[in-house]
Amino acid sequence: MRESAILIALGGNAITREGEEGTVEQQFRNTERTMQELVRGIRGRYQRVVLTHGNGPQVGNIVLRSELASSYIYPLPLDTCVSDSEGGMGYMFQQVLFNILHRQNLPERVVCVLTQVVVSREDPAWQNPTKPIGRFYSEEEARKMMAERGWIMREDAGRGWRRVVPSPQPLEIIELAAVRALLEDDFIVIAAGGGGIPVVRDEHGCLHGVEAVIDKDLASAMLASQLGIGTFVILTGVERVALDYRKPTQRFVPQMTVSEAEKYLSEGQFPAGSMGPKIQAAIRFLRGGGDVVIITAPENFTEALAGETGTRIVPD
Amino acid sequence: MRESAILIALGGNAITREGEEGTVEQQFRNTERTMQELVRGIRGRYQRVVLTHGNGPQVGNIVLRSELASSYIYPLPLDTCVSDSEGGMGYMFQQVLFNILHRQNLPERVVCVLTQVVVSREDPAWQNPTKPIGRFYSEEEARKMMAERGWIMREDAGRGWRRVVPSPQPLEIIELAAVRALLEDDFIVIAAGGGGIPVVRDEHGCLHGVEAVIDKDLASAMLASQLGIGTFVILTGVERVALDYRKPTQRFVPQMTVSEAEKYLSEGQFPAGSMGPKIQAAIRFLRGGGDVVIITAPENFTEALAGETGTRIVPD
Repeated sequence: MRESAILIALGGNAITREGEEGTVEQQFRNTERTMQELVRGIRGRYQRVVLTHGNGPQVGNIVLRSELASSYIYPLPLDTCVSDSEGGMGYMFQQVLFNILHRQNLPERVVCVLTQVVVSREDPAWQNPTKPIGRFYSEEEARKMMAERGWIMREDAGRGWRRVVPSPQPLEIIELAAVRALLEDDFIVIAAGGGGIPVVRDEHGCLHGVEAVIDKDLASAMLASQLGIGTFVILTGVERVALDYRKPTQRFVPQMTVSEAEKYLSEGQFPAGSMGPKIQAAIRFLRGGGDVVIITAPENFTEALAGETGTRIVPD
Repeated sequence: MRESAILIALGGNAITREGEEGTVEQQFRNTERTMQELVRGIRGRYQRVVLTHGNGPQVGNIVLRSELASSYIYPLPLDTCVSDSEGGMGYMFQQVLFNILHRQNLPERVVCVLTQVVVSREDPAWQNPTKPIGRFYSEEEARKMMAERGWIMREDAGRGWRRVVPSPQPLEIIELAAVRALLEDDFIVIAAGGGGIPVVRDEHGCLHGVEAVIDKDLASAMLASQLGIGTFVILTGVERVALDYRKPTQRFVPQMTVSEAEKYLSEGQFPAGSMGPKIQAAIRFLRGGGDVVIITAPENFTEALAGETGTRIVPD
């Protein structure tokens, strides 16, 4: 199915616009606009479609609600927060896509698969948690949370103390067979939301949720590779990848090879918190046999598929 | 697939035990015990298995967290709360079942489908909301919420004011085709959690979430009928259905016909809040062509399948 199959990873800006509060109503409205554009681009071109998505603000708010209410109701572990966000966001995508397909008289076949992604207890990320999550605390509160709940917390640029969690590498997608079965039955499949629900395998191979978050682009690259998908699109806040980003010498890159991408990455061209993991994900996908990666903004999707904008990364 | 197919609807006591706080850890532990028993009963007997489940305490807590945090973060509409609970609980079932199947060297094919269930705007339930949801408020707070958010609230037996929402009849299961496709591919499918995410269709047939909850047994009966499943099991807090419940003349019913069930229901034998909707669901399923309904407690599942306990309801 390689050439007729596409995986599209949606970044936060496909769902929430800068300056908005990000209410559920706003999320539905923005998602509608994004999905219109995606259906326009896909229609007639791709037979097999997988959507993945970030969940930063949504899971952050679930964690926040859990913390704010924790003197009244039991708190939620982070794996449960991620699964709640996969439910809430998966529902939104299912409904918005159903409606667009319905209006265009296309088969309304769209379904979300709650996805567990295995990470390792031996991953070095456990020694160095980097992902901030939840609300800001005073130093006194933070010391209490660290003692009582075993959290690791860091002072965040004068804004207070905040919990940090590890972001280990994705190793295995538990629901891969379900995603594949649904794709082969012509469903658009939403999967690996928020990078997937983080789990580890114990010595018997059984699964257990862990307190971590998984990078959604790395999880998406693995999912695309394992499904034998040819095209991997990463939708983000920029139309094209830039070199010398925000410097006087800044220039946009319409196309690069995977070796060039590796070289730029090692030169520090792509910051760790934003473009870095996307380029890393692109490299893994192409080194794993993928055909092409396209990085662009949601509103440029169709043009980018046609090669008119976006950044294409291709095998050497 | 009629005879080899079973749909099992899990009640709250399959997940949370009386007297417990109902933390996520406790939910996983209780679910593990329930699923052990289910796999024991199903193994070798049924080829197609659908699980549905209630979500009362879980969605109640999501609503509560949303309300408690609403001065800090945007509140969640009820359809989103239900979808969050389908995510969180679906994940739990997927993981617990995966581990049990794994330990028994069975194929670990289990997946949850987020399920939208259509209700009608014309349903009489909208005129008479009956399902209490969320926290208790003072009269003053309640008047404010009614004015500001359009809620309908009722004074609840001296305990304060509480929001009530309608519980309209399920009419259509949007993700039916996905559930069927996965069943035919030998997955155990978790669906229609909490009775499904409540939606209405507008004049163009497009879907929109609404503020309602759907009875999980009625939604389960519809799902079982539409999938052509022969056996529908309702797991609840009692081993057998009783007549003259909690009266000196109380007696348990090992078996009844659908006509007998209709007669007892019309005589007021089964209270509206508990056994009533289960008997109603059983009647609809059997009148729609189902083979048998079994009502029993989770721990009696295997015995009840063998006809040694539980209440069987059968066609006339």
